[in-house]
Amino acid sequence: MDLNQYAAVYKDNLLKDVIPFWEKFSPDQQYGGYFTCLDRQGKVFDTDKFIWLQARQVWTFSMLYNKVEARTSWLDFAVMGASFLEQYGRDEKGDWFFSLTREGKPLVQPYNIFSDCFAAMAFGQLYKATGEKRYKNIAVHTFDRILQRYNEPKGKYNKTVPGTRPLKGLSLPMILSNLVLDIEHVLSGEQVRNTIDNCVKTVMEEFFHPSTGLVLENVIPGGRMSDSFEGRAVIPGHSLESMWFLMDIAARNEDADLLSKTVGIALNLLNFGWDQEYGGIFYVLDIKGHPPQHLEWDQKLWWVHLEAIVAMLKGYRYTGDKRCMEWFKILHDYAWSRFPDPDYGEWYGYLNRRGETLLPLKGGKWKGCFHVPRCLFQGWKTLEEIIAPENDLQQTTSSHG
Amino acid sequence: MDLNQYAAVYKDNLLKDVIPFWEKFSPDQQYGGYFTCLDRQGKVFDTDKFIWLQARQVWTFSMLYNKVEARTSWLDFAVMGASFLEQYGRDEKGDWFFSLTREGKPLVQPYNIFSDCFAAMAFGQLYKATGEKRYKNIAVHTFDRILQRYNEPKGKYNKTVPGTRPLKGLSLPMILSNLVLDIEHVLSGEQVRNTIDNCVKTVMEEFFHPSTGLVLENVIPGGRMSDSFEGRAVIPGHSLESMWFLMDIAARNEDADLLSKTVGIALNLLNFGWDQEYGGIFYVLDIKGHPPQHLEWDQKLWWVHLEAIVAMLKGYRYTGDKRCMEWFKILHDYAWSRFPDPDYGEWYGYLNRRGETLLPLKGGKWKGCFHVPRCLFQGWKTLEEIIAPENDLQQTTSSHG
Repeated sequence: MDLNQYAAVYKDNLLKDVIPFWEKFSPDQQYGGYFTCLDRQGKVFDTDKFIWLQARQVWTFSMLYNKVEARTSWLDFAVMGASFLEQYGRDEKGDWFFSLTREGKPLVQPYNIFSDCFAAMAFGQLYKATGEKRYKNIAVHTFDRILQRYNEPKGKYNKTVPGTRPLKGLSLPMILSNLVLDIEHVLSGEQVRNTIDNCVKTVMEEFFHPSTGLVLENVIPGGRMSDSFEGRAVIPGHSLESMWFLMDIAARNEDADLLSKTVGIALNLLNFGWDQEYGGIFYVLDIKGHPPQHLEWDQKLWWVHLEAIVAMLKGYRYTGDKRCMEWFKILHDYAWSRFPDPDYGEWYGYLNRRGETLLPLKGGKWKGCFHVPRCLFQGWKTLEEIIAPENDLQQTTSSHG
Repeated sequence: MDLNQYAAVYKDNLLKDVIPFWEKFSPDQQYGGYFTCLDRQGKVFDTDKFIWLQARQVWTFSMLYNKVEARTSWLDFAVMGASFLEQYGRDEKGDWFFSLTREGKPLVQPYNIFSDCFAAMAFGQLYKATGEKRYKNIAVHTFDRILQRYNEPKGKYNKTVPGTRPLKGLSLPMILSNLVLDIEHVLSGEQVRNTIDNCVKTVMEEFFHPSTGLVLENVIPGGRMSDSFEGRAVIPGHSLESMWFLMDIAARNEDADLLSKTVGIALNLLNFGWDQEYGGIFYVLDIKGHPPQHLEWDQKLWWVHLEAIVAMLKGYRYTGDKRCMEWFKILHDYAWSRFPDPDYGEWYGYLNRRGETLLPLKGGKWKGCFHVPRCLFQGWKTLEEIIAPENDLQQTTSSHG
């Protein structure tokens, strides 16, 4: 396949398969919001509404409206989810619950700050699509609360004893580094700059582990490795996702040093995380090679492979490093021969180590309308940029495409 | 193999392999207590101390001292763990932390009431072995706190919103039904009777699901099934363990009706939980056949198979139901050909669906010196009782053995 053909694969799968799947099977016509627990054929098998997934779907349809085409049906679909979130999603402080019943009654408290991160993304994109001030206010208030909760994201639900082994997680700075660019239009320039600087510094100086060239999932504040289950964990998919967020920041800031570092780290992560025996990227590994505490460590997850594909495409697009293109093709072949379901559409989420389907679901408690469409979009657009470079960050005009 | 040979297999593996493994590799000579994170060869790969596993190991060695042989080395080993627990294990209310550093500093708060359950078991057995009043007091105080926390076991760490979907879990009544018999000698007769009555009623009237003949893991108080991820979950190994606890209670109370019910349910659970394709018992299933939320649902875990073996042996010993003996042999062959490690001793804990080793550890954050030795002991003794019945509950004098 040449790069034009790859680009068409990503675009077609997004617009002709994945998005129609969610449009058809996920709307809850009775109570509003979306069903996300969909079996292989799209049938609803559970009706709980998880804020992460509601918000991520609002974001996806708003983003498509903003970046692909101003289709009214996409905007209406985003607004439907946003209305449900607006009405039922928050507690009295404006923090976002983790989950609701189908009708919107709160089930699980706002212990998980990523509900808030995805809500801020959703309402920020929807504001861009509609100009509706109300949505902007929700995005801004939610973003402010995230910053307020930054150092104690779990609040009173934190079960660790203070002081003994303070650990911070990669997830929050990682998500923030993406969120802040995504909703830049509702934030002040200073807020954007400070957040970006802080995220880049945190990921590159604290979570990056120089002696292995990898990225840790949890570190002692300041950056020392903790020799514990949490401290030894490496989640290659997570770190790869983080690296493409930072590549976008580096490109924006024309920071060639950061670009080259993040591309190098992404390549390290793939070399470390790739399963030499069965192919695919492991979900969780221990940096010292000890048994990880996650029993699902050897599974092959959809988002891990999609985020890795985007990281390699961006790496190639920004630096022209040929190893990125080689890895892209390996990852593409692995993922596309196993995850998409040609019979009923969308992608399987969970494969076992051998790459066989572990769960036949298309959506569940953690898989919704997000990683697949976002990465198909990013893949499509990045391939198009590689084919027809638009700016001088593209350092190669290789013969591809 | 005849039953005498089976009995010898369980006894020898317990006394010549498993117990020596823990005696050799687990003591922390420097700080006291036990290492439980041991790799295939017994080498320590993590030094954190999890209260569940510390207490369970104290219990195991005290129990062996009380029931197998009064070996001073076993008692000393139990006392070493108990001293560490006594010194570092509790918060100011006497509730047990979840985990400590190697040195004994608290890492994770007392959010998990099973830490307390296993501590009560440990100190109750150790009191029986030593007559030391101090140990009795710890067991009694801990047991009282468990009953006080019964309705809100997670306390302030509970993240569910009160009222929307009240669910109760099988684990606590299940563990209590075993704990109360184990530490009967430190409780009042009334406490024992009330707790037993309450546990039997709770498991059989609320968690037992008549239309399928199975046992649910979480129910709406009163016993209705909740059509949610938590509400649809069946953990066959857990329910099988619960059934042999209730068989012991039924035998003690000479309750033939409860015996026959629990044996029938245990057989249902095996028929439901057995993997027809690769053998072994699934870890988690959805009662309606939907995808479970646990990614590790299809794994084959050591304790599941050991507890099932004990359930089948007790079922046969108490009722003579031949299906129990047939299942015992199937389970025995499955488990003994995959879990024990003939090269380095002890049992692997985690196999994938195909029965291949998933993690090479012998101990970790959740696997310690407990299910293997307890079930080997129970298997050995139950087989001996089947061979030479001692009381009239044995309803068959079949030709086995």
